[in-house]
Parts: sequence; C-alpha cells; structure tokens
Amino acid sequence: MMHKTRPVRLNFNGKPVVLGGGRLAVIAGPCSIESREHLLETARGVKAAGATFLRGGIYKMRTAPTSFQGIGESALGFVSEVKREIDMPLVSEVTDPRQISDIADHVEMIQVGSRNMYNYELLKELGRLKKPILLKRAFAATVDEWIKAADYVVKGGNEDVLLCERGIRTFEPTTRNTLDLNSVAYLKAHTSFPVIVDPSHGTGRPELIGPMSLAAVGAGADGLIIEVHPRPKEALSDADQALDFAQFTDIIAKVSAVARALGREIGTQP
Amino acid sequence: MMHKTRPVRLNFNGKPVVLGGGRLAVIAGPCSIESREHLLETARGVKAAGATFLRGGIYKMRTAPTSFQGIGESALGFVSEVKREIDMPLVSEVTDPRQISDIADHVEMIQVGSRNMYNYELLKELGRLKKPILLKRAFAATVDEWIKAADYVVKGGNEDVLLCERGIRTFEPTTRNTLDLNSVAYLKAHTSFPVIVDPSHGTGRPELIGPMSLAAVGAGADGLIIEVHPRPKEALSDADQALDFAQFTDIIAKVSAVARALGREIGTQP
Amino acid sequence: MMHKTRPVRLNFNGKPVVLGGGRLAVIAGPCSIESREHLLETARGVKAAGATFLRGGIYKMRTAPTSFQGIGESALGFVSEVKREIDMPLVSEVTDPRQISDIADHVEMIQVGSRNMYNYELLKELGRLKKPILLKRAFAATVDEWIKAADYVVKGGNEDVLLCERGIRTFEPTTRNTLDLNSVAYLKAHTSFPVIVDPSHGTGRPELIGPMSLAAVGAGADGLIIEVHPRPKEALSDADQALDFAQFTDIIAKVSAVARALGREIGTQP
Amino acid sequence: MMHKTRPVRLNFNGKPVVLGGGRLAVIAGPCSIESREHLLETARGVKAAGATFLRGGIYKMRTAPTSFQGIGESALGFVSEVKREIDMPLVSEVTDPRQISDIADHVEMIQVGSRNMYNYELLKELGRLKKPILLKRAFAATVDEWIKAADYVVKGGNEDVLLCERGIRTFEPTTRNTLDLNSVAYLKAHTSFPVIVDPSHGTGRPELIGPMSLAAVGAGADGLIIEVHPRPKEALSDADQALDFAQFTDIIAKVSAVARALGREIGTQP
Repeated sequence: MMHKTRPVRLNFNGKPVVLGGGRLAVIAGPCSIESREHLLETARGVKAAGATFLRGGIYKMRTAPTSFQGIGESALGFVSEVKREIDMPLVSEVTDPRQISDIADHVEMIQVGSRNMYNYELLKELGRLKKPILLKRAFAATVDEWIKAADYVVKGGNEDVLLCERGIRTFEPTTRNTLDLNSVAYLKAHTSFPVIVDPSHGTGRPELIGPMSLAAVGAGADGLIIEVHPRPKEALSDADQALDFAQFTDIIAKVSAVARALGREIGTQP
Repeated sequence: MMHKTRPVRLNFNGKPVVLGGGRLAVIAGPCSIESREHLLETARGVKAAGATFLRGGIYKMRTAPTSFQGIGESALGFVSEVKREIDMPLVSEVTDPRQISDIADHVEMIQVGSRNMYNYELLKELGRLKKPILLKRAFAATVDEWIKAADYVVKGGNEDVLLCERGIRTFEPTTRNTLDLNSVAYLKAHTSFPVIVDPSHGTGRPELIGPMSLAAVGAGADGLIIEVHPRPKEALSDADQALDFAQFTDIIAKVSAVARALGREIGTQP
Repeated sequence: MMHKTRPVRLNFNGKPVVLGGGRLAVIAGPCSIESREHLLETARGVKAAGATFLRGGIYKMRTAPTSFQGIGESALGFVSEVKREIDMPLVSEVTDPRQISDIADHVEMIQVGSRNMYNYELLKELGRLKKPILLKRAFAATVDEWIKAADYVVKGGNEDVLLCERGIRTFEPTTRNTLDLNSVAYLKAHTSFPVIVDPSHGTGRPELIGPMSLAAVGAGADGLIIEVHPRPKEALSDADQALDFAQFTDIIAKVSAVARALGREIGTQP
Repeated sequence: MMHKTRPVRLNFNGKPVVLGGGRLAVIAGPCSIESREHLLETARGVKAAGATFLRGGIYKMRTAPTSFQGIGESALGFVSEVKREIDMPLVSEVTDPRQISDIADHVEMIQVGSRNMYNYELLKELGRLKKPILLKRAFAATVDEWIKAADYVVKGGNEDVLLCERGIRTFEPTTRNTLDLNSVAYLKAHTSFPVIVDPSHGTGRPELIGPMSLAAVGAGADGLIIEVHPRPKEALSDADQALDFAQFTDIIAKVSAVARALGREIGTQP
C-alpha cells in the first residue's frame, strides 16, 4: 500500500539538489525579503544552523489591503547574487500568473500560497513551467482537493510538485492554525508527492515550532519550512512567529537527532 | 448601531436596476451556460417565476482538472442577445484577471467565486472596473477576512461590492456546506454592503433550498441567487442541487409572502 | 419524502399544551433562575410579549468550576407556585441522572444541554420518564449523532423528544456559535421530531437574535427558545446575550408576522 | 515560560508506577474487554512488545443505542486476576457517576471519554477519588475548556489528572479525527499536566498510527494509548483502527528509537 515518494530534482550553482529523496530538507528564511542586507544576513544565519534551502517572500498575500505587500520586483535585482554568494537555492511565492515570467529566472522553486491553492488558472500556468512547485494547502482544503489542485499542475506537464502542510482552520483559538500532521502521514502512505511541513504558520507561536518540527519528522515529512529573522520583533510581516538564529539553531540540532534515529539525515544532496 | 445599506445601482436595457435598495433581488439561472438555447430556455423559465436577474457560468472553477470547465469565450457571442430578448441583466464569474476585458462588456455584474475570494491580484483589478462585483465568501473565510477582501475592491476605486454568503465548511456531512445566516445578520447590522444569499451551494440539497431561502429573507438578505435548470438531471455541473421551474416557482411565491410580511417586495426596480 | 412532524402533547393547569403541532412555540425566560421575584418578574414580562412557555435554569453547566452553578434545589420550593400564578409551563435542564427525581415534579419539560447530548446514561434514564425532553445539539455533533442521541430516549420508551438547534462550533469568531439552520430544514424534511431553535446561544449577540429568530421560522422551526432578563446587565449568567422586555416584544411582533405569512400562528394551544 | 510537568504516581503490585516523570508511557490493549481469555491474550501480546500499562473498556459509550455497550460489571470478576498475572496496571472508562464505586477497586486509573469531558457532575465525583484520572479532550473542546474541565477534578481535591489528546472534529473526511499535536506542545509549554496521545482514535486508520505515534513523541507527549487486538477484524468495537501484535511491536521499536534520540526511554518505573 505504501507509495514510494518521487523525488524532485533541480540544479543549483552547478550541483544537484534533491527534495523527497530520503534526506530531510530544511528550508528557512524570512517571511518577506526586506532588503539585500536583510536577506544576506538571514541566509548566513540559517545556513550556519544547518538549513539547506532559502525561503523569502517577494510578493506577499496579505489579508488587509493596507498591510505591507512585499518589496516586489525590486528584490529581483539582488536575490541571484545573494544566493550565489551563500550557495543556497531559493523558494518564493507568486500570487498572479502575470508574475511568473519575471520571477522564474530568479528562484529555484515557486511557492503557491494557501490562499491560491484554488487559483486553478495560476496552477495551469505553472504546469507549463520547468521548475518545482511548492503547493501549500488552503486553510480549509480537504486532502482530496489538495491532491486535485496538484493534479492541475501535473496534468499541465510539470510533475515536480511538493505539497506543503501549513495548518488548517478549526475552532481552536490557542494556535493560529491547527497543524494537521495526519495529512502528512496520509500523503506519504497514499501518494508519491514529497511533503514539506510549515510549523511557523502551522502554530503561529515560537515556543511550539520546535516540538512541532520534531513531530513533523516523526510523521514522515520530507522537509521543513521555517520563518527565521535576525531580529524577529523588527520583521515587517509575521513578526509574532519568526525565530531568531539561536532558537532556530537549537531546533535544527534536535531535528537532526530525531532524523538520525529514523535512519535519515538533514540535507538536499543526493 | 444599525448601518444603512448602500445600494448598488446599474443600468440595463435603458432602465435602472437597484440591488440592496430595500427590494429583494432574485437572481437565478444555470450553474454553467451550456448553449444559446439552454440559456434562453432557462431565462424564460426563471423570469416567469419572478426572477429579476440572470446568473450563468461562462468560465467555471472545478476542483478536478478533468471536470467540465465551462464553455468559455464561445458564450460571449450570444449572451448579450439573449439578455436583451428576455430583458434580464446577467451576473457571471471571472476566474483570472486576464478574462476581465473579454467578459466585462457582456455582463452587468461580475462574480468572484469562493475559491477566488483571497485572489487579491484579481480583486485589485476589479477595483479598477466600473461594474458591480458579487464577492462570494471563501469556504473558510472569517467574516472579517471577507470584509477585508471587499476592501481590496473598494480601495481600488470600485465601491459597488455585494457580499454573497454561500455556506462555510464545517464537520457536518449532511449538507454540502453549512449556510451561515448569522453572517448575513451580522453584515446587515455592522456594514453597508448589500448581502446576497446562495441557498443552492449553501445546502447542496434541493429539498432544503426552499426553507433556507425563506430563512435568508428572515435574516435580512438583500437578495437570493439560486441555481435553476430546465432539466436538472441533465445539467453539466451541479446537477444535484439545481431546481426545476416548478420547484423554483413554488419557492418564489413563498419568498414573496415572507418579504411582504416584513414590508418588502421582490424586485430590482427603484 | 417530507415527514410529518409528530407533535408532543402535555397538560398544564388543566389545559392541553402542544408543541410541533403546527403552531409556533415561543419559550422564553432567564438563563438561570436567580430568585422567586426574578422568575416572577421575567415570566410576567415574556408572557405580555406573547411567550407561551417559560424557560429557566435551576442547575447550570458552566465551563469553569468557579462560575455560578445555578441556585439548585432551593428553586424547587417556588417554581410551581410562580408557574401557576402566571399560567405558563416550564422547561429546565438536568445535568446528572441523580437530579431527575427531584426536578421531575416541578417542570413540564426537561432540557438536556449541549454538553450532555452524549451523556447516554442520562438519556437512558430520561427514556424511562413520562415527560417531554428538549434535546440540545452538542457543539460539534453531526445531525446523525444528534438523531441517534434522541433514539437513546425513544428506545427507552419515551417518544416525546424535541430537538433544539443552538449553534455549532466553527472557525468564525464574530458570533459565539454558528446557528446551523440547514439542520432545521433537514430535520423537518427527514425526521418526525419537532425542532426548536435557540438564537440566543446560536448567535451570542443581542442585535442578531431578532433576524435569526425570523430566519428560524423561515427554515421551518416549530418554536424558539430565547433568553430574556428584566435587566440583562445584572444577569448572573449569559448577561451578554439576554434580551430585555422591549427588545423581546419587538422581535415577537415580527416573528408573528412572518409566521402568519406562512400560514402559522404563535401558540401552544391545540 | 516552560512549565515543569507534575508527575502522577501510583502503586501497583507493590511497585511504584510514574506517568509524566520523563519516561514515555505506552498504554495498550483492546477497545472493549470481550472476555477473560481475550484480555489475557491481549495483555500478554502488548507486554511482549514493550507496553507498560493496560487499557480496556468495561462500560462503552456508543453513538447508536443499538451498538455493543461493553460487557459491564461481569468484567470486574476477572480483571484484577489478569492484571496481577501479567503485572500491568489497567485504565478503564466510567460513563456515569454511579459506576465509580463499582469500578474504582479494579482499575489503577479512570478514563473520562471525550463524550464526557463536559460531564461536570461526573468530574466533581472524580475529584473526590484518590486515583489518577485520564481526561480525554472532547471532539470540539478548545484547549482552554479542556484545562477548565481538568480543574473540576483538581478543585475537588484530586490533582492526579492526565490530559489525553484524541483528535478533534474538522471538515477533513480522510481521517476519523484530526489529531491536534499543537495542543500537546501547547499543554507541555503552558501547564503542568502530563499529556497522553491516542493515535488510534486520532487517525482511525491503522497505517497512520505508527507515524503519528512518532509525531506525538516529537511533540513532547508523556505517553501513548493505542488500541491493540489479537485479531482486529474480530473486535466487537473499533475493529477498523485496532493494530495486531506485529504492527504494534514494529511501532514500539521505532517509538523507542525516537524517544532515545530525545534523551528519553519507554517505561513507567521511576
């Protein structure tokens, strides 16, 4: 019954990068890229702690039209340089089909945020791309709908889809969302998509990100995506749930121990 | 505390049409427009029963990429003619910012479906349009997020937004969704947006559409939007919840009686 | 397909009282009975407005052990006298099988609160009683579980069960609960139990109780149960959602108009 | 901010047993005790795999009145003998305050099932007992309500309360419930109650119990409670989610590895 996960492969800086191939990916970085210096400082910090992939928002989806919406195109001038200097590939989100051509050359993986999981026109466009897609689950998507959304990309011709569990909406107010690790165990047992877990959005509380990262590894996740900021209180978005470098370093050490106990290792090399 | 609703006004066939001005709008028609004849037959049937506005999908959002996706642009050739012949304005959905310019000349109101409520790039584009927007609530949107989504349109310069409650996702499997009429009463008390209720998607069961239409009027809705098909079993989408003309006619008679008991009348004339 | 509702009949003060027989029952009174004077004053006020049945908590279920738990047995000394004086039957809640014998002689209908819907030992005991049971839906009970809970009473030998919708728990924070009127329409179409709606708990906001009472009548409810207090701000429990006499009187007038539009009338006489 | 967990201590067969003291408790056994032989066979099997505590239902809560309700008092004649022979303490559920005096002498820990979490009269009675209480979270209880329910027991004089997460009700149909491990991490960070996780009810699918047991350890749980049956297909209740001995043995080996990676060990000895 257990499906074998189909790994997603890409090349970066002349080296192969594999997600879902057995090793545990650690994707980290800021919610929003605030400036060249901010991205560089964050990338150095998360790499030193053991992260293997960079995250960072260029275009942001915000509930209120008056909230900070990301620095947009102006980031495109420096992200490639920073990535090369730090030697880490980057995942970033698109929020409109018309952004794809601009951003595609600057990122190694494109994220579809939870608010866009049902944006089928966007998914169809991404199906025509030759680049891995990190598809976040919508707030209240059933697992079946999530798989069908991935199928929009796959049927378009792009099989490199990773699913990202980031918490669902329930009646519980203690946490920002309810991280549904059942879904991770289910997807690993019944589909071949690599599965990434986002404990930052999945809890919304810094003190729970460590335990829930370990839990995600136990549930079988192929990787973690975690929000880190050099000085979380100064973050322009998601300030409440970003980790500082010390917290992140401590968590990754424990994640590594649990991964090894299950015969795995942190990494994205083949 | 009670806010006064700000009516949405438009012109059709040389006459003014008002939504949210005290009268109760009845918007009806097929889930998807299947052909010129199908639209014409449906429009005649719902008009005879008392409907004042036509609905009909040109581009459809479907959970599975293999489901019928609407007839698309080919409908644009005949909808204007049918509308004029029947003398009913039309609301239809856009699912991509790139469709707006094509469809805008052919419809009197543009619907944003629940899967696109968080599609802020689409909402920003609709904010630049001079046409009423019917904004459906996402499956699991809080009322506050829904209002903020409407603000994306309003802040863009288009104040003519109507909110459409179509049911939320809960643990209850008996009905397709849980129609949240609390939200209708809340929006009428605390905002100035006209509120339309969709008992077809809100229940997913034909035998509940009548009672829930009456309930919506009781809760204070400014209008109803109901799926009707000449032969529901043959519908290309939402066959399970479409009403036939006899069922629809019976419901509208009761809706009219309840509206009158509350000092209101079905209609969209000033 | 439509089931005919099986009415619940009882006798009070030498006269027959019928619930679910076509007329619309209006059950009103305080959340908790605070004293003889408080009950008498409230009963007079709600009767003047058109209520036909009295509600009032003797034993209360409270989330926190330190909250007011009801005045308990001490109420039993005066409730019968007040009821006779005002000529209104009373419904009150039991929270433990051991309370039944004490309270049964003093009330005309026994309420099972939402927290006890799954208390099957209590339901089995009530199945042995000759007295109508008002069974509230649990916060997160499916309609099917709710019907099965009613079956515990019916199978015990007591067919006089009324179901009370009081709102379910969802992700929406604007209202205390989400009143699920779909369930009312469903129960009326598919079961023979009379259905009562509680818009007080179902919304938790006074300004929504009126619209949602009208909505409940539209959905087909056999009656309403509403919290009223002579001076809501002084109430010992549920102070935030109790109506005063003026608010209640205004609502009942509108409820009566909608009921008449649907060929019904407020009342519990045959 | 991190609270130190207050361990629960008891004596069994002349030896101390500790839950929440740092070691990881593994509680296992059948959903319902079906006979003396069935209990003995199951107890031997789970002990061989490494379980340290026995579970087994004597009185069962079932949604439908016609389902198997447990063998009741007749189990009390043999459970003490089986426990002594196997040298494992037993946890079993009470569903009515009137059962407590019968069962208390035969079990080392009393379980309150999720349907009774709001049964405050039962909780008050258990507050007077000198025996640990395993308090399951209700289907849709907030974490705050769950803590307040535990306070009913504590305020009654019994501080030995363990909280058991068993999944909450959401819109997701793939799994029986959504196991909320966020709540486990939250309770460990913010309260001093030991926390047990039930992946059997929390998933309802045998293939997910292993991964979610590991996840629970990662989230910080003090123990697991798992349904095991010698021949799951023949089980009189919960046949769909019971593990056989081979499956259980395999899971416990992995649980042990993850626990050791986090500096812990399976066990209930001090």
